[in-house]
Amino acid sequence: MANVFRTTRRIEFADTDMAGIVHFANFFRYMEAAEVEFLRARGLSVKLVWEGQSLGFPRVSASCDFLRPARFEDVLDVAVQVEKVGKKSVTYAFEFSLHGEVIARGKVSSVCCLIQENRELKSVPIPAGIRERLGSV
Amino acid sequence: MANVFRTTRRIEFADTDMAGIVHFANFFRYMEAAEVEFLRARGLSVKLVWEGQSLGFPRVSASCDFLRPARFEDVLDVAVQVEKVGKKSVTYAFEFSLHGEVIARGKVSSVCCLIQENRELKSVPIPAGIRERLGSV
Amino acid sequence: MANVFRTTRRIEFADTDMAGIVHFANFFRYMEAAEVEFLRARGLSVKLVWEGQSLGFPRVSASCDFLRPARFEDVLDVAVQVEKVGKKSVTYAFEFSLHGEVIARGKVSSVCCLIQENRELKSVPIPAGIRERLGSV
Amino acid sequence: MANVFRTTRRIEFADTDMAGIVHFANFFRYMEAAEVEFLRARGLSVKLVWEGQSLGFPRVSASCDFLRPARFEDVLDVAVQVEKVGKKSVTYAFEFSLHGEVIARGKVSSVCCLIQENRELKSVPIPAGIRERLGSV
Repeated sequence: MANVFRTTRRIEFADTDMAGIVHFANFFRYMEAAEVEFLRARGLSVKLVWEGQSLGFPRVSASCDFLRPARFEDVLDVAVQVEKVGKKSVTYAFEFSLHGEVIARGKVSSVCCLIQENRELKSVPIPAGIRERLGSV
Repeated sequence: MANVFRTTRRIEFADTDMAGIVHFANFFRYMEAAEVEFLRARGLSVKLVWEGQSLGFPRVSASCDFLRPARFEDVLDVAVQVEKVGKKSVTYAFEFSLHGEVIARGKVSSVCCLIQENRELKSVPIPAGIRERLGSV
Repeated sequence: MANVFRTTRRIEFADTDMAGIVHFANFFRYMEAAEVEFLRARGLSVKLVWEGQSLGFPRVSASCDFLRPARFEDVLDVAVQVEKVGKKSVTYAFEFSLHGEVIARGKVSSVCCLIQENRELKSVPIPAGIRERLGSV
Repeated sequence: MANVFRTTRRIEFADTDMAGIVHFANFFRYMEAAEVEFLRARGLSVKLVWEGQSLGFPRVSASCDFLRPARFEDVLDVAVQVEKVGKKSVTYAFEFSLHGEVIARGKVSSVCCLIQENRELKSVPIPAGIRERLGSV
């Protein structure tokens, strides 16, 4: 697959629940952390100042399918892909694997927002320079 | 809507992030807590002993659309509905509202599993008595 | 004991870890939530506008002794006490009980801070009106 | 200082709160993760099978002083030291630094417990082999 960013994630004790496996909500934290790593590799972030403007990328939707459990000390391989860059939004696809077997697949969509003086968010088109770095040329 | 279970959720300080709003991953915790409350109201739980067998309901998929942010001290209205009861799985739909306006909608699917001696999970048909209580008659 | 504020906390599934008990870090979230409830009962909060100034109460220290574990669905009794109100800081003592038996005791100290324009924090004396409500007359 | 184990921790977006800084409760998760890394470096863990017995190290107390805030994307230096190894318990001291300046100091004490068949915990003396690896000879 073209343009796949790869990282890893080691499961911490606090991420598990009484079923002895990673609590499902934590996969959404893992996705965000992988997204941030991907963006950092391209000189971006989920919160950044771009051409003098303070931008953020709040999530508008998130989903995940859980195929197999992950456990304490597992080191997951995480693949990040930019699935779609729209005018104002970007959608990432994530794949979590353990020993070569996919254990979870997720998606997260974020909207580019201007963080205004009063801290209110206002959706705006993704600046051309950011689009380029996201690989959507 | 028939059979809607309603509860509320007050946003805690620790649930917010640096954007000043509830971090999106927390909505998945909120959904689970609402599901547990719903089940408790029907004499069930996400982990229970049923006719001598230890059962759990691990999640196989979860999704959420975020329409508007929630903030510290907001008291959200949460509506829970059993959307579908399959042979082995159950899907819940959740709606979060603030002052009458929907701010997020989510779904979670769980699979009925037998918790075996070695703590491994094995999917099994949902017992008839539990199906009844879930309202799937 | 004089001036004890009491509330309860029901343990959620996501609060447990693979040892089958509440992960210890969650007790610090529980303490903060109880503190917020206590403050709300007195018309205050951990973040508020007071006489035109934006104030916050960041934590400067926190500790907890864990005597017995808490488990999923347990409903803990939480006692909150203002232990000490200094010039700029306030220390709370918390006691968690289950069925009348103390299972954890903790303390949290916060410093009154002015939230400046640039969002930087600057410690300031606790306003007289807030001191009064904290019961430190 | 003798026997200091060093690691790092990058602050994630989900670790921040609406004050724009790391929520204090997360430092307890960071301490545990650093402890686990330290133990792994010595062939141990917070949950392990040792000479045929299943052992765990539940926390009996934890404390932290917060000197300066940490923020999103900060990379903290974490120093871990075994402060004391008692007959059944071990106390770790942690120091978090940013750019050479200490921002937080914490301690965690754990008790060596046998995880019994029924998953109940029973405190036991720390096995000699584990004591040695903890550096308490």
